[in-house]
Amino acid sequence: MSLISKTPKPPYYAVIFTSIRTDGDNGYGETANRMIELAEQQSGFLGAESAREDVGITVSYWTDLDSIKNWKANTEHLDAQKIGRERWYDTFKVRISKVERDYGV
Amino acid sequence: MSLISKTPKPPYYAVIFTSIRTDGDNGYGETANRMIELAEQQSGFLGAESAREDVGITVSYWTDLDSIKNWKANTEHLDAQKIGRERWYDTFKVRISKVERDYGV
Repeated sequence: MSLISKTPKPPYYAVIFTSIRTDGDNGYGETANRMIELAEQQSGFLGAESAREDVGITVSYWTDLDSIKNWKANTEHLDAQKIGRERWYDTFKVRISKVERDYGV
Repeated sequence: MSLISKTPKPPYYAVIFTSIRTDGDNGYGETANRMIELAEQQSGFLGAESAREDVGITVSYWTDLDSIKNWKANTEHLDAQKIGRERWYDTFKVRISKVERDYGV
């Protein structure tokens, strides 16, 4: 995962995943790395950025909504989502958004 | 700034600000806190989430594009943006996106 994703000219999609972790690793770190590796292999994946302090934020970028839907339905990812809800996350929020404009240096 | 923002039912807007810092504080911390305080006073501001490890991610939420435009043009914020480009950020990217759907626990 590169630090700042090299995304194409908008429009494209961003999935903003914000979470608060439970205590202890409980297999989280390994699965989190695997999910990035797996996401990178999905059709329509453009990149991801991630940081955690009190709150964790992972933003992944996608070409279109169908790619996001397919990733959400990926079997290995579904298993991870289930464990996430049960064990790793105290609370989380997923926001699916369409990037309309971007700029930077 | 609450950890996970309590945003309303979509649609609303998310400004995804991703950055890599230069070395040293150089007044960054104080201004970053002040900008959150100032953003909270703006019309249309819904909340913000922030974390930094190798990369820093701050996502702020807004009711509409005009509110984002007004915040970008705020005088004190303009000063901070200038110092940011000159001193605090090695690279950064701003992405303005429309949240179409959200869910969580």
